Amino acid sequence: MVRRIRRKERGRLAAWDDSTLNPYTAPVARVRPGEVVEVETWDAYGGVVSPEQSFQEAAERGLVGALNPVTGPIYVEGAEPGDILVVELMGIDLPAWGAASIIPGFGALEGWLNLMQPRTKVCTIEGSVVRYEADHGKIIEIPTDPFVGTIGVSPAYEAVQTLAPGSHGGNMDCPDIRPGNRLMLPVYQRGALFGLGDVHAVQGDGEVCGTAVEVGAVVRLRFSLGHGKIGWPRVESPDEIMTVCSARPLEDAARLAYRELVQWMVSDYGWARDDAYMFLSQAAKARIAQIVDPLYTVVAKLSKRYLA
Amino acid sequence: MVRRIRRKERGRLAAWDDSTLNPYTAPVARVRPGEVVEVETWDAYGGVVSPEQSFQEAAERGLVGALNPVTGPIYVEGAEPGDILVVELMGIDLPAWGAASIIPGFGALEGWLNLMQPRTKVCTIEGSVVRYEADHGKIIEIPTDPFVGTIGVSPAYEAVQTLAPGSHGGNMDCPDIRPGNRLMLPVYQRGALFGLGDVHAVQGDGEVCGTAVEVGAVVRLRFSLGHGKIGWPRVESPDEIMTVCSARPLEDAARLAYRELVQWMVSDYGWARDDAYMFLSQAAKARIAQIVDPLYTVVAKLSKRYLA
Amino acid sequence: MVRRIRRKERGRLAAWDDSTLNPYTAPVARVRPGEVVEVETWDAYGGVVSPEQSFQEAAERGLVGALNPVTGPIYVEGAEPGDILVVELMGIDLPAWGAASIIPGFGALEGWLNLMQPRTKVCTIEGSVVRYEADHGKIIEIPTDPFVGTIGVSPAYEAVQTLAPGSHGGNMDCPDIRPGNRLMLPVYQRGALFGLGDVHAVQGDGEVCGTAVEVGAVVRLRFSLGHGKIGWPRVESPDEIMTVCSARPLEDAARLAYRELVQWMVSDYGWARDDAYMFLSQAAKARIAQIVDPLYTVVAKLSKRYLA
Amino acid sequence: MVRRIRRKERGRLAAWDDSTLNPYTAPVARVRPGEVVEVETWDAYGGVVSPEQSFQEAAERGLVGALNPVTGPIYVEGAEPGDILVVELMGIDLPAWGAASIIPGFGALEGWLNLMQPRTKVCTIEGSVVRYEADHGKIIEIPTDPFVGTIGVSPAYEAVQTLAPGSHGGNMDCPDIRPGNRLMLPVYQRGALFGLGDVHAVQGDGEVCGTAVEVGAVVRLRFSLGHGKIGWPRVESPDEIMTVCSARPLEDAARLAYRELVQWMVSDYGWARDDAYMFLSQAAKARIAQIVDPLYTVVAKLSKRYLA
Repeated sequence: MVRRIRRKERGRLAAWDDSTLNPYTAPVARVRPGEVVEVETWDAYGGVVSPEQSFQEAAERGLVGALNPVTGPIYVEGAEPGDILVVELMGIDLPAWGAASIIPGFGALEGWLNLMQPRTKVCTIEGSVVRYEADHGKIIEIPTDPFVGTIGVSPAYEAVQTLAPGSHGGNMDCPDIRPGNRLMLPVYQRGALFGLGDVHAVQGDGEVCGTAVEVGAVVRLRFSLGHGKIGWPRVESPDEIMTVCSARPLEDAARLAYRELVQWMVSDYGWARDDAYMFLSQAAKARIAQIVDPLYTVVAKLSKRYLA
Repeated sequence: MVRRIRRKERGRLAAWDDSTLNPYTAPVARVRPGEVVEVETWDAYGGVVSPEQSFQEAAERGLVGALNPVTGPIYVEGAEPGDILVVELMGIDLPAWGAASIIPGFGALEGWLNLMQPRTKVCTIEGSVVRYEADHGKIIEIPTDPFVGTIGVSPAYEAVQTLAPGSHGGNMDCPDIRPGNRLMLPVYQRGALFGLGDVHAVQGDGEVCGTAVEVGAVVRLRFSLGHGKIGWPRVESPDEIMTVCSARPLEDAARLAYRELVQWMVSDYGWARDDAYMFLSQAAKARIAQIVDPLYTVVAKLSKRYLA
Repeated sequence: MVRRIRRKERGRLAAWDDSTLNPYTAPVARVRPGEVVEVETWDAYGGVVSPEQSFQEAAERGLVGALNPVTGPIYVEGAEPGDILVVELMGIDLPAWGAASIIPGFGALEGWLNLMQPRTKVCTIEGSVVRYEADHGKIIEIPTDPFVGTIGVSPAYEAVQTLAPGSHGGNMDCPDIRPGNRLMLPVYQRGALFGLGDVHAVQGDGEVCGTAVEVGAVVRLRFSLGHGKIGWPRVESPDEIMTVCSARPLEDAARLAYRELVQWMVSDYGWARDDAYMFLSQAAKARIAQIVDPLYTVVAKLSKRYLA
Repeated sequence: MVRRIRRKERGRLAAWDDSTLNPYTAPVARVRPGEVVEVETWDAYGGVVSPEQSFQEAAERGLVGALNPVTGPIYVEGAEPGDILVVELMGIDLPAWGAASIIPGFGALEGWLNLMQPRTKVCTIEGSVVRYEADHGKIIEIPTDPFVGTIGVSPAYEAVQTLAPGSHGGNMDCPDIRPGNRLMLPVYQRGALFGLGDVHAVQGDGEVCGTAVEVGAVVRLRFSLGHGKIGWPRVESPDEIMTVCSARPLEDAARLAYRELVQWMVSDYGWARDDAYMFLSQAAKARIAQIVDPLYTVVAKLSKRYLA
């Protein structure tokens, strides 16, 4: 039987403890490398949205509390600063609905699409399909592609809001952090002090309106520890190696991601630095994860077939 | 038999005529909508690189002339300002080799990878494979994915260098401008005054070192004319609609591309504006085409299955 | 008696000839180094705004033609590619009024100040004062500080719109290009092919709404030629050396301007490169010239007292 | 006699307590509005640099600890979230020397000036003059212009590193935060939880090499409380009102600063919004404070003579 780490009751969520990744909050659980755990998470709205209540209504009723809360800190036994925390994503259980919202003052086109009205759209989730009811009347089926939007460790000494991504992970909104893939994070604190939340049933590249199909969910995962220094989160799928970097402007996020990929090719796969750079110019893939959070996120990828 | 538009002899290439898209150079050919033509193009080096001569050597010998030359202007009969020029890409014939280069002072990581040495790597092209000989000794096969790197029309009154992309097309370095797809460009001049060149046998997202596997090639295409106003280049594949926008910083290119996609959904597919925006947040794809030219280019895409 | 170079009649302005800096338009005058000339210029609106007609009204009446026209090209005898064109600004005669405008879709806060209405405000100019009548009823006197907003030479082979700044000068909107100062420009064409226009009676840093107190004017100036290579426009006042660079994002304009200043200190004043860099960190001044044109402009300055 | 708030002993500085502004560290002092206090501060190096030891040497000896430490938190009696904390800067006592450094990987031109060597330059400070000994042999006298580089309050729930600026103040490196001026900060926490440090004897606009003439110092100041909502730090000198905003890219910092200035003119001085915007386009001044910290800082200013 798989051990389950429960999320806090909604009313007990607090910005300091639950809306930051930080080295000071007491761990909610201690986990051994190799152990499989199930973690319950809240959605990015902090649980205030439902088919009966839009985010706007919750805001008007004064119900909005801790935003983008994570479940954690989870203390990983044996993790020491300078290690690599490897998180094997094994599965995500989705609920029966999720909700996307337009929140004025937020989103990539906020300045260009004047007079946007706040709104929340609840989508039902059935099997591997999200049903999106368009204003023009048709119901559009989008295949689910669930992933963990916010996932990371405690920084060295800051308390970083969970809305922000960074070298510690956080709100990367990167669809490649999905079941079947492994996420690698630098460890800054003893025990790593890991947290996760903000699962998306599906999300487009860029997450342009600022929200995906946001869900509370259950995430199955297993930790292991690696040695060696990494500067930014890395992802490995069966087919690709990937680096996930966040900065502004967006080209700096891309430059960081490509630089990390060059360094990975050099350190682990025997490439000469400039040759790796020139090869990526022919064979890399890149995804804009999001352009709506405090820093923007790019994923750079290389197929493993080129690394044999 | 297909009509062929020949490229100029290398020695007769001139920056003004061949390295700008402009309304003043006399057309090299006049083509009717519906007619299939084959256009010969030079590589981005202006033809000075070969298996026997690197770009660096050509530069030292004073041979580098018109960079990124296009074949054109091609006058499209009947095209008037305000029309849409539709370019159906039908095929690309690749040569037996192409060349990638590191050119100091150029490329996305130029500032970060200090002391980069200039170099040119010639890759053989055989069937549908590019052979890249890595410095570590192995030969890596990359599937060819040929496309036209620079393709566009004359701006309204400027003469824009062919190294730059813009609303008129130009050096977008967008791998989706490939055989099987249709490119739509706004027409600013009578006859459109179309030009193309800079074919790539394959390119990674971002074109990070500044060059792809650069080739001289033969491009088969067919023009048609559409009515209605578009602000930026658009691409249609059998499966997707795409907008291709260029700006700095990179997030502005992405915002433009998403905005154009919203407008396309509204004008042609019956979506409400804010609903289109919210839907793209769930279902759009985005590709970083390049982050090395005077403006950076992003392609935003939506599957046609959502537009039925 | 000073020789006068007349501006074209308004009705004869054409985008190609007058709204680009380019190597193809026939010179309107030939001037010898050392000769003082007076050049008449149009305002940035191309002469369509008056106390009786706003820009919006002119647009509705279809009167808006060539925007930001320059008077030129002026052929400077003896100027050769690789030279430095030195422009000594000797005086500006202002008219009795100038006009600022809000033009929707333009300006630094366009996306943030939704629902902006187009408007034109005519200000009277009397002696050394601009009278700005605020909506709250008071008339505010701003000291005039006239300068040339758009001033430059022809690029090597492009035809660059006069709304854009660049290494060739152009629409820098830099208040330091004022009487008493000397502007240095790189020469790309035989004869330099110089043009100027877009005089401002006064302008704030950033030119945030997109327009200054725009005037048609008469500019007195004298050319001389220098040798040596400069990459970007430079300005010298009696007290300071300055570099004027344009890019996006704005930090790149600043980095370019500081880099040019470092190079100037090294080449002309005996500084070691890293020492110049460290010294600028203590003693440089910087002005945001504008953040509204196709590229943004920063002026970096160093007092001559540190260069004795 | 003026009350003095001592800085911690160097050996007791800790990153968490001293290199963040945060709501959790216990106050080091409680101060009443109206009371004049003197605060001792460490330099940005955390006290490890001296005429005998460069930053590089300190780093090699493992002595570098808490960077950019602030003295605080200072609890201001009566301050409540939503108030404005007004800090009247009354004087700064400088020591006999300060030090600027080049630190590889840091600074605005880091990517462009390859092969920069780390170095520290100690400058003597005598009366109102900093003596900078240039590598070319001359000693250059720069007038002192001391100000507080890092000054701010605790954010709502994050612990923000003191190297970063933001809406809470922090590492703005803004030379206008000088004796004779008043700084206004939004209050997020009961008691405001104020901290300051990182005094500069003098600094150029942009702080381009990443450091100014860094000093430990004594700052005399007096708090008062205001009501009303401000979104970002504001400064008032006898002659000007100023807004100080931080973002990336740099144009976003400028846009924020101008927007805040518009809002200030509207709320306090009776201007119509669009009129304020158009007026700033004629009369605003802007300073690039720094382009080297995690966010970049711009100060936008308007002379009070226009606000009578």
